[in-house]
Amino acid sequence: MQKKENILIIGAGLCGSLLALRMAQRGYQVQLIEKRPDLRKTDISAGRSINLAFSNRGIKAMKLVGLEQKALEICIPMNGRMIHDQEENTFLSPYSGLEHEYINSISRTDLNALLLEEAEKMENVSIQFNQECLAVNSAEAKASFRDYHSGEEKTISADLIFGTDGAGSALRKSMMEDHSFLFSFSQDYLQHGYKELTIEPSTEGDFQLYKNALHIWPRGENMLIALPNLDGSFTVTLFMSYAEGDYNFDNITSAAKAEEYFQKYYPDALKLMPNLGEEFFKNPTGALGTVKCSPWYSHGKSLLMGDAAHAIVPFYGQGMNASFEDVVVFDEVLEKHTGDWEATFKTYQNIRKKDTDAIADLAIDNFYEMKEHTAAPIFQQKRKLETALEQEFPAEYASKYRLVTFQEQIGYAEAMQRGRAQDKAMLRLLSEQKINDQLSLKEKLNLVKEETKNILQEDTVVY
Amino acid sequence: MQKKENILIIGAGLCGSLLALRMAQRGYQVQLIEKRPDLRKTDISAGRSINLAFSNRGIKAMKLVGLEQKALEICIPMNGRMIHDQEENTFLSPYSGLEHEYINSISRTDLNALLLEEAEKMENVSIQFNQECLAVNSAEAKASFRDYHSGEEKTISADLIFGTDGAGSALRKSMMEDHSFLFSFSQDYLQHGYKELTIEPSTEGDFQLYKNALHIWPRGENMLIALPNLDGSFTVTLFMSYAEGDYNFDNITSAAKAEEYFQKYYPDALKLMPNLGEEFFKNPTGALGTVKCSPWYSHGKSLLMGDAAHAIVPFYGQGMNASFEDVVVFDEVLEKHTGDWEATFKTYQNIRKKDTDAIADLAIDNFYEMKEHTAAPIFQQKRKLETALEQEFPAEYASKYRLVTFQEQIGYAEAMQRGRAQDKAMLRLLSEQKINDQLSLKEKLNLVKEETKNILQEDTVVY
Repeated sequence: MQKKENILIIGAGLCGSLLALRMAQRGYQVQLIEKRPDLRKTDISAGRSINLAFSNRGIKAMKLVGLEQKALEICIPMNGRMIHDQEENTFLSPYSGLEHEYINSISRTDLNALLLEEAEKMENVSIQFNQECLAVNSAEAKASFRDYHSGEEKTISADLIFGTDGAGSALRKSMMEDHSFLFSFSQDYLQHGYKELTIEPSTEGDFQLYKNALHIWPRGENMLIALPNLDGSFTVTLFMSYAEGDYNFDNITSAAKAEEYFQKYYPDALKLMPNLGEEFFKNPTGALGTVKCSPWYSHGKSLLMGDAAHAIVPFYGQGMNASFEDVVVFDEVLEKHTGDWEATFKTYQNIRKKDTDAIADLAIDNFYEMKEHTAAPIFQQKRKLETALEQEFPAEYASKYRLVTFQEQIGYAEAMQRGRAQDKAMLRLLSEQKINDQLSLKEKLNLVKEETKNILQEDTVVY
Repeated sequence: MQKKENILIIGAGLCGSLLALRMAQRGYQVQLIEKRPDLRKTDISAGRSINLAFSNRGIKAMKLVGLEQKALEICIPMNGRMIHDQEENTFLSPYSGLEHEYINSISRTDLNALLLEEAEKMENVSIQFNQECLAVNSAEAKASFRDYHSGEEKTISADLIFGTDGAGSALRKSMMEDHSFLFSFSQDYLQHGYKELTIEPSTEGDFQLYKNALHIWPRGENMLIALPNLDGSFTVTLFMSYAEGDYNFDNITSAAKAEEYFQKYYPDALKLMPNLGEEFFKNPTGALGTVKCSPWYSHGKSLLMGDAAHAIVPFYGQGMNASFEDVVVFDEVLEKHTGDWEATFKTYQNIRKKDTDAIADLAIDNFYEMKEHTAAPIFQQKRKLETALEQEFPAEYASKYRLVTFQEQIGYAEAMQRGRAQDKAMLRLLSEQKINDQLSLKEKLNLVKEETKNILQEDTVVY
């Protein structure tokens, strides 16, 4: 049997914990090092989103490590988007025409804790918290850390280093400063930021909004969303421009103005948020960035995974799912591992990067869809038709959302290509009134398939 | 009269020298500081391209500062691409159907020297060389420098700082490290590098290739190009993959192998390059990167221009022209300057960034066109038709190349949008044989215009 390497994993967030567990299951010696304190012992939400949308790709990864059931036990199913208009009307737009296809609200902390618990049970895993990574020397496979409490610095050597240390990755920074190879990199910020707020449970402990939905208040320029928590509360997130529009993060400088804004745009939500004014200024405003880079590996000894390799904006609910899927894909590549890590890392990136690039772009698209289009009549007409098609012809039709979210057997890149062509086809047919009430559902399906095929062909003609 | 600010310009390359001259002409007090020695006194090509393609947008900028004639005197007109196939056949593909539309080969050093001479004549300009910028504090409008010879460090204060310090800009790095605002940034490297080589004049001092053309040896994966110099030589540039293909920069490790490669792919060029083996290893291999960022300004006191704001790959021959056009556009915005520099910088970026983003993308496109498509029959058919249309209907038809290169009255973004739609239309019509010999040229024109209109409409439908 081949010797199993010592692996250093920097970052014990969701991706790092999952990776540590999986690599340990494969027999590697794993050291998992985390900058923050142990989240099982301290409240350290620290401006990061409190709950997450957990769906098929993420579930598949939990299944890989044998934790699917335990994860589903702490989930709240969300069957669709509950759209709140400005007149306080609501309607539910299902995520899929099929009842068993839904997404889940899950607590980041609970999910992370579950993974850490399980990793800790393994004999070949050691975990250290409060160790900030200062720099990584990939060529020599060693990294330096500073203890948060003692201030002491130490160097850890390994055979391989995995950087799962998030959007601000120390490994990635070290790769960028390593001029022995060309490192392509981008960080792109939206002109919008976000702020997390809360709708508490009622005094009886009940959910104050419909429990099984992701709530959206689309307002064109800005939007509010809310996801349910197990304790009956909702975590509410305001996505708002920093500087543009009548109300923005730069000019809302008093509790009164925050309340005025909510009264004008989100009156039904405001009724459930008596502490809005206070919370608005207590909670930080976060930036929304996309990070892409290449290569993900260096010197055949280090590899970026999860947000460290591809941070995305949260609008497709796929950030964590994509990072978890990284581990599934990497695990598949490892099956064929011959001992050449450079080749293994390269194969992994060749397979994976087109998909993480695609979900990054899809997540940006969905920002515009959520804040603007979900409220538009033609979009609602399209969603209605899509739902009907999925119900009647589940094997023949899957919306872009369904391809991305519920069809984990295909990659994000393929989902994007097919989904975008379908969207274009359907919107074109609807706006030109080629799809109308005279047609049967089957005829509509055929029209959509035909037009989609044409669009895909147009796009792929190579001269 | 408004008080004229003290302006510090970091970088006395092409863009910085032009900007210094123009700002001085407008009455500002200008300090121009350069990292390298004075290029009029030392040979410092230092891996940067020796000659450049100089065309309408660049000429317009030289006209703005009154140097058009002096610049044109040191130019060699290039009327088209001279394509060299592998069997040593050549044919000329003109850049435009109109005789007076051509690009020029110009020496980077001569052009830069011309600008420095002229700037130096101004009373309100001071120039210092050998001063490396270490960091910029935009909020306080001061920058620190180290003297290359003495090693002494000093700080220079100003009212405003302009960073024209190229792709590796110190001002841009300081902006990236300034966390008081969100800075979007990308650096993208091609998988190809480049190496400059030489075809010397004949012993009689004559050009050994046709003088008035940009020579191209398109070979699919890689390519060779050559531009004429005033002394009868040609500067030859090899664009080759670092790691892919039978021959690449990584695996050509001996003079014999370099010669073998040239013998196989560029036999006619090799005959004119007796020192290839030696030169190949003497000259450095350069990387090909694209840099984009936003915002270009910070704290209302500093602004990036030229390559510092938008470095592009060289395949459209527009890098210097785009940087020069920056100065023209900025100068137009300055006409309306009210004293609010933040607003002036913002207006400039709003007008300009879409265009520099476009030329960055066009330059990447042209890499594939040059190395692959220039040799393809359908591309040659298209170029022939385009040339005929431009000759017969110059006011009604302009190819993408002509829009980008010779129509300086429209921006790069518009040129890209119209040019890409036209290319798509023409290739579609040619491949479907809807354009054929039965049609008159006027009928062909109408078909192309109609199809282009359809494509532009398809692309701009907003639902």
